[in-house]
Amino acid sequence: MTAAAESSSDAGRDRDRIVNLSDGIFAIAITLLVLDIRVPTIPENLVASELPGELLSLWPRYLGYFLSFVSISVFWMIHHAIFRPIRAYDRTLLYLNFLFLMVVAFVPFPTALLGEYGNHQLPVAIYAATLATGRLLLTAIHSYSTRNGRLLAELQDPTMVRFFLIRGLTISAMFLISIGISFLSVRAAIWTWFIMIAIDAIVARRRLPH
Amino acid sequence: MTAAAESSSDAGRDRDRIVNLSDGIFAIAITLLVLDIRVPTIPENLVASELPGELLSLWPRYLGYFLSFVSISVFWMIHHAIFRPIRAYDRTLLYLNFLFLMVVAFVPFPTALLGEYGNHQLPVAIYAATLATGRLLLTAIHSYSTRNGRLLAELQDPTMVRFFLIRGLTISAMFLISIGISFLSVRAAIWTWFIMIAIDAIVARRRLPH
Amino acid sequence: MTAAAESSSDAGRDRDRIVNLSDGIFAIAITLLVLDIRVPTIPENLVASELPGELLSLWPRYLGYFLSFVSISVFWMIHHAIFRPIRAYDRTLLYLNFLFLMVVAFVPFPTALLGEYGNHQLPVAIYAATLATGRLLLTAIHSYSTRNGRLLAELQDPTMVRFFLIRGLTISAMFLISIGISFLSVRAAIWTWFIMIAIDAIVARRRLPH
Amino acid sequence: MTAAAESSSDAGRDRDRIVNLSDGIFAIAITLLVLDIRVPTIPENLVASELPGELLSLWPRYLGYFLSFVSISVFWMIHHAIFRPIRAYDRTLLYLNFLFLMVVAFVPFPTALLGEYGNHQLPVAIYAATLATGRLLLTAIHSYSTRNGRLLAELQDPTMVRFFLIRGLTISAMFLISIGISFLSVRAAIWTWFIMIAIDAIVARRRLPH
Repeated sequence: MTAAAESSSDAGRDRDRIVNLSDGIFAIAITLLVLDIRVPTIPENLVASELPGELLSLWPRYLGYFLSFVSISVFWMIHHAIFRPIRAYDRTLLYLNFLFLMVVAFVPFPTALLGEYGNHQLPVAIYAATLATGRLLLTAIHSYSTRNGRLLAELQDPTMVRFFLIRGLTISAMFLISIGISFLSVRAAIWTWFIMIAIDAIVARRRLPH
Repeated sequence: MTAAAESSSDAGRDRDRIVNLSDGIFAIAITLLVLDIRVPTIPENLVASELPGELLSLWPRYLGYFLSFVSISVFWMIHHAIFRPIRAYDRTLLYLNFLFLMVVAFVPFPTALLGEYGNHQLPVAIYAATLATGRLLLTAIHSYSTRNGRLLAELQDPTMVRFFLIRGLTISAMFLISIGISFLSVRAAIWTWFIMIAIDAIVARRRLPH
Repeated sequence: MTAAAESSSDAGRDRDRIVNLSDGIFAIAITLLVLDIRVPTIPENLVASELPGELLSLWPRYLGYFLSFVSISVFWMIHHAIFRPIRAYDRTLLYLNFLFLMVVAFVPFPTALLGEYGNHQLPVAIYAATLATGRLLLTAIHSYSTRNGRLLAELQDPTMVRFFLIRGLTISAMFLISIGISFLSVRAAIWTWFIMIAIDAIVARRRLPH
Repeated sequence: MTAAAESSSDAGRDRDRIVNLSDGIFAIAITLLVLDIRVPTIPENLVASELPGELLSLWPRYLGYFLSFVSISVFWMIHHAIFRPIRAYDRTLLYLNFLFLMVVAFVPFPTALLGEYGNHQLPVAIYAATLATGRLLLTAIHSYSTRNGRLLAELQDPTMVRFFLIRGLTISAMFLISIGISFLSVRAAIWTWFIMIAIDAIVARRRLPH
């Protein structure tokens, strides 16, 4: 808006405010997940005998907590890697980032759905679709920022950019494939996610210097 | 309070703390919205048949989530643009900002009301009044900061300031007009908001350099 | 811990992390207040006729929201003024600050109590006691930091320090007096708070340069 | 990823973003604790006579709030001390930190469990196990960062590092011992925690310069 706002130190500060807001939303979405694990209500005289069983029966919720915590953490790590070289932003980047944050802040709902009805197909499909959408939007943010060199502190290594793009699209595709799998077996679909997260972490570790 | 606190680097840091608190409130208000989309309670043997219908019937809540997420995002973007050239602050600016944040943090309530009774006139009117108040307060913050040059890093372009003022007052007025429309048709009033948000985004993109 | 950590730029960064954590807690406590204003449950066919009355009957909750939002905002403004000249910290300051934050994060509970049973003496007394404790702890933080010159960037004006101390103790005392008043009249006690907040704001504006 | 990202100022900024996300999660987990203290529901005509007793009977929840607030504060203070000399990070540090944050964000659940069934053995054991895990992960983060000198701004004093390690392992072991105690006496186990927190604070104050 002003000449000063165009200068590089201000642009850096602007970028910082977007990153701060994003981190706030990441932190809250990840912490709200625990609200979904609710303390069972048991009459006082039955607590000793029934509490262990009741707490064990909450396992789909612990699983949902773990899975969504890991998923949002992975989103954060990728978001972090994408925004690191970014020094300026434009409206498109801002809109894409807000769309992505809308998905991140939404994650507690499909997680709660999975925790309640995790043995049914629809919640599994909704969960997979949410994560696929989040990953696609992240890939779009990365793709947009690297194609607009003026947003970056310096040009990115094209091999890394392509690797990042393929990785993002592959993971998104596998989440969509897991929806197909969920029609055959709900358990198999959920296992696909864990395998994917593990492979993703191993691949990233091999290819990225840190 | 001290001489050092008057110096420019400290003033910048002070401004940063206000911006950080504001961003925290933005991030939390926007993330709490999802708590309003509650998982339906269905007996286990009916889940497969009833869950799809139950999830579809939650559409006013998804709509509320989307609408309020976009509205708070737009508030944030304008707040961001207003505070960018601000380098110092005084008590009036602080009070105006807190009043504005009181509206932002309140948004989840009218959103929940809209999600529950969105087909009735009163919730629609309350929602519109909340957003109009928020926008008016933002416009007041902008107007106050630009009229007090000492709060700014440099003087603002008067054409831009006037455009910003007119835009803020127009949007607020249109939210108030949508309250009138809600007496005739609740659906038409809600549609007005979407049209307004779209026009606002297009106008902003045309007039603002980024 | 290391020599570098003793240097002034690191000390400044340390102080920033304490301030950031505090601001996070302020932002969340202030935003959680809205969760206490719950959407009334009304059968669909009675919404049009009963919703206005039901929403009006929530006035103690709107009042609680307003009162606690203002109170936490005032806490934040004073916290902000106290920490501005602070450049280093020690364990005592850290402990005092955590004790104070424990009160800030607790505010939503007495607020909910006031919203539910605001016409009774006990909730009014608990609310006043909470705010008095918060204010006393803030005054203790200020008093401690100004008496330990090594924590400050520069010495504070002793007149201002004394004014701040007297102001803090007076407000705390008045909150405690309002507990006495609550035994006579609950309404009068609540009015005392509003008068106090207004006087506090006016006095602060007169005495403080900004 | 880029050469610039390898430079020391960028590494510092990266570290800051991790610290900011961690602080966000600390702040939210600590503030969500209050949501577990719920306003009792009493018919209007019985409020005056029953509210005092009902509020007193909530004491396990106040205790849980206090205990978890202090525990998360202690976690934060140690996290703060560990990350202060850290200037860079790698994937292992990032993963360890996320695992630790997963425990921090989980604390509200065992706290709620303790608040509801604090006179039973299982909730006491789960609470102790959660805090022991958190403390072990913190110790692992410290141990890892000090053994990888390249992550630090400068080498740490080996005596301090060893003291920190022993302290972390001792506290974790004592939490695990308190699980054993809980089979004999639930009250004694809870008392162990308070004694431990007090000893930990006194030892830290003696050994650490600030």
